[in-house]
Amino acid sequence: MTRLLLATRNAKKLVEMRRILDAAGVSGIELITLNDVPEYPEAPETGATFEENAHAKAVDAVKATGLPAVADDSGLEVDALNGMPGVLSARWAGSHGDDNANLNLVLNQLGDVPDERRGGAFICAVALVVPGQEDVVVRGVWPGRIIREARGTNGFGYDPIFVPEGETRSSAELESAEKDRISHRGRALNLLLPHLRALAG
Amino acid sequence: MTRLLLATRNAKKLVEMRRILDAAGVSGIELITLNDVPEYPEAPETGATFEENAHAKAVDAVKATGLPAVADDSGLEVDALNGMPGVLSARWAGSHGDDNANLNLVLNQLGDVPDERRGGAFICAVALVVPGQEDVVVRGVWPGRIIREARGTNGFGYDPIFVPEGETRSSAELESAEKDRISHRGRALNLLLPHLRALAG
Repeated sequence: MTRLLLATRNAKKLVEMRRILDAAGVSGIELITLNDVPEYPEAPETGATFEENAHAKAVDAVKATGLPAVADDSGLEVDALNGMPGVLSARWAGSHGDDNANLNLVLNQLGDVPDERRGGAFICAVALVVPGQEDVVVRGVWPGRIIREARGTNGFGYDPIFVPEGETRSSAELESAEKDRISHRGRALNLLLPHLRALAG
Repeated sequence: MTRLLLATRNAKKLVEMRRILDAAGVSGIELITLNDVPEYPEAPETGATFEENAHAKAVDAVKATGLPAVADDSGLEVDALNGMPGVLSARWAGSHGDDNANLNLVLNQLGDVPDERRGGAFICAVALVVPGQEDVVVRGVWPGRIIREARGTNGFGYDPIFVPEGETRSSAELESAEKDRISHRGRALNLLLPHLRALAG
C-alpha cells in the first residue's frame, strides 16, 4: 500500500476521494489526512489563484511529512461578482468556513441581479506532489448559475445555491455518486487519476 | 435660478455638490433632492456599471419631475476582489447602506491578502440629463490602497479603509475641501462643471 496524504482536515473530502478511487478501480492507496498528522503547521492560503493555493498546500504537506501529498483548493466564481468569491470562497462572509453565512451573503449581494447575469462556475484545482517526481496541478470547472434561494442538503459550501448547466436541481440536491461524475472536484480528480494509478503502482 | 434635481436622498451629497459649485463660482443653480419630491418612485440599481446606474437614475428623475437632473453612482473597486464591491458597494454586506458592515466585510475578506496586492480605487460616475439636450455621463477615478484597519471619521462609505495614492491619511482623515479637490466624486463633478455652468446660464 502506498500512503497518500490528503492535505485537508475535512473528513468529507476523505470520503469523496475514497469513493472516486474505488469507482475508478484504483486500489493500493492508503489515504490519510492532516488529522492523522499531529501538530501539523497549517499555513494560511494567500495565493491569488486556486492552483497556487493547492500547490502550496501540497508542497507544505510533503515538506512536513515526506509523504506523497494531494491538496485541493476550490471555490465558486460568480460572473456578476467578477469571478469572486473565487479563492476567498471559504471566508467570503468574513470568518472561515461558515457555509450558511457565505451563501447567504452571495444571495444578498445578487439580490438585484437579473436572471441573465446569474452565471457562475465551481472551480477546483488539485495538486499532487510526490517526492522526486514532477509536480502535477489540474483544474476542473463546473459551469452553472446562481439561484435565488438555497435548496437541498447534500454537499457543502455553496452547493445549495448552484444549479449546474443542464440541471434543474441544485448541486445540493444531487446524489454523491452523481455529483462525483460531473462536479468540479470530480473532474479535477479524474484528470489526476492516471497519476494516482501510477502512484499506486 | 435654474432648479436642478439631485437624484439622491443623501443629504451629504447635497452639501458636497453645493460646496463644489460654490468653490467653482457657479451660481444660479438651486439644488433640490428626492427628499423634496413627494412619493418619488425609486427604482433599484441593477446595472452592471456605475455609468449605467447613474444614467438610469437621472433619466428616471427627469421622467418623474420634468426637471434637469444629476445622478451619481459610485463605489470601491478592490484589485484583490477582481474590482468588486464595485456597483454592489452599498450592499456588499447584504443589506443596503450599512457602512460599517460593508467596510468590515472587505477588511475580513482581505485578511490574508498581502500589502502588494491591496490596491484599489474609488470610482464615481455622474450623469446629467437635461430635457431636450444630449445626456452627459462622466467618470472620476481615485486610485489608492486598502489598509488593514479603519481610520478617521470624516466622509462615509469605505473612506476609513482607503488611503489615496501619495497620501498616508485615509480618505476619512482628509478635510472636506481637500477631499473635494482630489476624490473620485470631486473629479467627476469637475468634469461636469462646464455643463453645469452652461445650465446655470
